[in-house]
Amino acid sequence: MQNETVVKTNPFGFGDPNVAYAQYFQGQSFLNGLVTPAGLVDFSISNVSFEPGCRNHWHIHHDGYQILLVTAGEGWYQAANHPAQLLHAGDVVVIKAGIKHWHGATKDSWFAHLAITKGTSEWLDPVSDAEYAQLPARN
Amino acid sequence: MQNETVVKTNPFGFGDPNVAYAQYFQGQSFLNGLVTPAGLVDFSISNVSFEPGCRNHWHIHHDGYQILLVTAGEGWYQAANHPAQLLHAGDVVVIKAGIKHWHGATKDSWFAHLAITKGTSEWLDPVSDAEYAQLPARN
Repeated sequence: MQNETVVKTNPFGFGDPNVAYAQYFQGQSFLNGLVTPAGLVDFSISNVSFEPGCRNHWHIHHDGYQILLVTAGEGWYQAANHPAQLLHAGDVVVIKAGIKHWHGATKDSWFAHLAITKGTSEWLDPVSDAEYAQLPARN
Repeated sequence: MQNETVVKTNPFGFGDPNVAYAQYFQGQSFLNGLVTPAGLVDFSISNVSFEPGCRNHWHIHHDGYQILLVTAGEGWYQAANHPAQLLHAGDVVVIKAGIKHWHGATKDSWFAHLAITKGTSEWLDPVSDAEYAQLPARN
């Protein structure tokens, strides 16, 4: 599996098992909170790490947005009815409210991104093994 | 000089000479814009890189804030009437509106941070060579 060291030693922190959101992920993810709303800002910033093959369910952000800043490894972002986009460190994804999407690692690589998130999330169906298996091979 | 390669190959981009803000910096800085306000968000995100010894002037953010997420190298953040804080990759600084402060590289190291910035900036005096020289030596 690729990029394990670079993800686990990410300067923005590997964090703890993402227990609170585990029900909305397939596979194991890890969460390191950096900034939380506290009167100053109306969004949170966290570094989220995914083991190979881990991805979150299709979901929609309401009354806000999510910005992904990829910090390490290799992963996917897919909006509904669009092809999946392969992501590497430094890539930026801006996700507007109302867009059904998912993100996660490739099957062969660890993956980590900062997430700047405002608003609430509506969680939908998992990305099925069949959908995920159809993504282009990376190795 | 330390950390030149890691700053210049930063995944969030080294960018171009920071011409627009050169008058508010001592030394050479570089700016790589990542996200700009466009109806979706009310802040910008840029990766800012500093050559060794480069720092911005004392300044104040009004009607907003600035969040620094250090991406590479070694630098300083100082709020007025507080000791300077040494920063490394992964460090996060949240700067509220009204706080007079400056940030920049150490004298021996390149430095880069993401800046999430809302509002306007009031630019004040440079950090004098005497003030800067009084910072603790790092080598």
